[in-house]
Amino acid sequence: MREPSALSELPGVEPLPSVNPRLRVKATPKASAEDLFVRLRAGDRVALARAITAIESTRPEDRVMAESLVDASLPFSGQAVRIGVTGVPGVGKSTFLEALGTHLTGRLEQRVAVLAVDPSSERSGGSILGDKSRMSKLASDPRAYVRPSPSRGSLGGVTRKTRETLLVCEAAGFDVLFVETVGVGQSEVAVHSMVDCFLLLMLAGAGDELQGMKRGIMEMADVLAITKVDGENRAAARIAQANYRNALHLFPRSPTGWTPPVALCSAMSGEGIVDVWFEIQAYLSQMRRSGAFEDRRAEQAVEWMHAEIHDGLTARFYADPELRERMRAEEVAVRSGQRTAHRAAQALLAEFREGVR
Amino acid sequence: MREPSALSELPGVEPLPSVNPRLRVKATPKASAEDLFVRLRAGDRVALARAITAIESTRPEDRVMAESLVDASLPFSGQAVRIGVTGVPGVGKSTFLEALGTHLTGRLEQRVAVLAVDPSSERSGGSILGDKSRMSKLASDPRAYVRPSPSRGSLGGVTRKTRETLLVCEAAGFDVLFVETVGVGQSEVAVHSMVDCFLLLMLAGAGDELQGMKRGIMEMADVLAITKVDGENRAAARIAQANYRNALHLFPRSPTGWTPPVALCSAMSGEGIVDVWFEIQAYLSQMRRSGAFEDRRAEQAVEWMHAEIHDGLTARFYADPELRERMRAEEVAVRSGQRTAHRAAQALLAEFREGVR
Repeated sequence: MREPSALSELPGVEPLPSVNPRLRVKATPKASAEDLFVRLRAGDRVALARAITAIESTRPEDRVMAESLVDASLPFSGQAVRIGVTGVPGVGKSTFLEALGTHLTGRLEQRVAVLAVDPSSERSGGSILGDKSRMSKLASDPRAYVRPSPSRGSLGGVTRKTRETLLVCEAAGFDVLFVETVGVGQSEVAVHSMVDCFLLLMLAGAGDELQGMKRGIMEMADVLAITKVDGENRAAARIAQANYRNALHLFPRSPTGWTPPVALCSAMSGEGIVDVWFEIQAYLSQMRRSGAFEDRRAEQAVEWMHAEIHDGLTARFYADPELRERMRAEEVAVRSGQRTAHRAAQALLAEFREGVR
Repeated sequence: MREPSALSELPGVEPLPSVNPRLRVKATPKASAEDLFVRLRAGDRVALARAITAIESTRPEDRVMAESLVDASLPFSGQAVRIGVTGVPGVGKSTFLEALGTHLTGRLEQRVAVLAVDPSSERSGGSILGDKSRMSKLASDPRAYVRPSPSRGSLGGVTRKTRETLLVCEAAGFDVLFVETVGVGQSEVAVHSMVDCFLLLMLAGAGDELQGMKRGIMEMADVLAITKVDGENRAAARIAQANYRNALHLFPRSPTGWTPPVALCSAMSGEGIVDVWFEIQAYLSQMRRSGAFEDRRAEQAVEWMHAEIHDGLTARFYADPELRERMRAEEVAVRSGQRTAHRAAQALLAEFREGVR
C-alpha cells in the first residue's frame, strides 16, 4: 500500500488504479481517523471508500470516526463544482454520466466523483440506483470515483450522508462532483439544496401527463438536456426541445434572470455531451459573475446548519437510554390504543426536558 | 347562527348549507376552543372551518387553540374510514372525488370530507391542488366538506396539519375522509401513513417512462382505478388494465396477501364509480377480518408519536428567545463563510442543552 503523505500536501497526486476496496480493507488493520484522512488527502481511494463507509454507517464508533473526518475535511472543501443530475428511470443517467465523466477525466484531466441519492422505496427496500457496474468505464478510471447510493434509510438520513460525503470527496481533491438522484420527486429538493447546478435529463416523446409530473422538478433545473438523441429519435428530440423551451417560458422567471437552456445529446454516439458541459459552464460563469453562486452556497450552508440542528436534537433524544426504555413502554401503550400518540409524545418530551435538567 | 348543542350529543344533525366562512367569521366574536368544539361536534361547518384554520395557522395563540381542539377531538376520532387518493395532475382526481363523493352523500347518506396535501413547489410557491371550485357540487353538498390544501409550508408541517385536521373532522362526525395528494412522490409516503386505504388513479395510454416513475407509488396502492374510461378511451383502458395487473404481479407480495384490483371508471358518465367504492370496501373488509386494519392504525399511531416528538423537539428549540438571538448571529457567520454549518449547529445544540439545565 502507498505510504501516506503529509496532511498539508495538496492533492494533485494520481490516485491508485481501482481495486476492489473490500479486498484491501481486509488486509489492513483498523486505521485511525487521522490516518485515514492523511491517506485520502493523498489520493488513496481505499481510504476514501472507508471514510464514506464510516459516514454511511449508523454504528456509534463509526459516527465518531465520520465526525472527525468531516471536521478535518471542512477546511479543504468548497473548491469543487457540485452538479445534481436527475431524470426518470430509463432516461439514461448512468450512460450520460459515463460519457460526460470520461470526457472530463480525459482531455480536461478533471477528477470526477459520482454519488447517488436514493431513499429506498418503502416496501421493497431495494435500491433503484447505485449499481456501480452500470458505469464500469468510469468506475475503473483512475481519475474517477463512483459511489453507489447509501442503502436504505430515511431521506433525511441519506441527505446528511451525501452532504458529508461531498465534503470528504472535496478534501480528497475531486474537481467535479455529480450527485445523481432518481427523479421521482422525493429526493430532488434535497439534492437541489446541496449543488451549484441542477441538470435535468429528459426523453423526447413523453406524453402530456408526464409534463405535469415533471413541473416541480423542471422548476428546479438550471440546465435541461434531452438524451438518446440518435437515429430515429432526432426529429422527435427537436420537437421536444422546442416544446420544453416554450414550457420554460411559462415558469416564473428566476431571480437571477437565467433561462435554463435545453441541450440535445446522445451518450451512445457521444454527440452533444460537450454541449451539455458547455451549458453547465455557462450557467456557473453567469452565477459567479453575478454573485449568485456564492449566495446560493451561503444559503445552502444556513440550510445545512438547520438540518444539523434537527438531526442533532433527534439524535440526543433517541440516544438517552432511560428515555428509550420509557419510549418502548409508550409505544406499546400507543399501539394497543391505551394512549394517544399525542399524549405519549408530550410525556416523552416532558421527560426529556427533565432528564437534561 | 345555530345554537351550539351539548358536547355529549353525537353528531347526526344536518350541518348548515355551505356559506362563505369568511363572511360568518367576521360576524361572530372570537370563540373559545370549548365553544368551537361544541359547535363543530353539533355539525356546525363554520366552526369546523375555523378549527381547521387554527390548525393551519402558525401563530402561537392559534397553536394553543389547535392543541385544545385536537385534544378534545381525540376521544371522538377513529370511527371514520380514511382514504388516500393520488394520481398525476390531469388524471381527474377532483372530478372523480366529486362523482364518488356525491354518490356517498346521496343514496348512502354518508358524511364526506375531502382534504388535500400539497407541499408547495419550491420556487413558485403555488398550490397545485386545493381549488375548491373544482369540486363545486360536493363543496355545496350539505353532507360534504371540501377543504383546500394548507397553503405553503414544509412537507412535515403540512403532514402534521393534515393529521390534526383528520382528527377534528372525525370529531365533527364525518364518516368518510378523503386525503387527496398531488402524485409526484413527495407527499404520497406522508399520506400513506395516515390512511386506511390508498387509492391510485391512473390514465390509460401512458408510456413506459411513466411506469418507472410510478413504481414507488404503485407499491403503496391498495386499490387502482383507471379514470376517463369513456368513448374512444375504452379500448386503451382495457389494455392498460391488463398491463397494470401484470405489473402488479411483479411486485413483492404484500404481507396481507392482498393483490390490488385495477378498476375502470368514468367520472363523466358515472360508470364504474360504484365499482371503485366496492373495491375499497372489499379491501377494508379483508383488512378488518384479518386484523390488518387495526395493525396498520396501531403502526400509524406509533409513527405519529415519533413525528410529534420530532416536531416537539424542533418547536422547543426554535421557541427559545435567547437561542433565537444566538442563532441569528450564527446564521450571519455561516452565510459569510466565517463558520461552518456543522460547528454552528453544534454550538447552538450545546447552548440549548445548557439553557434547559
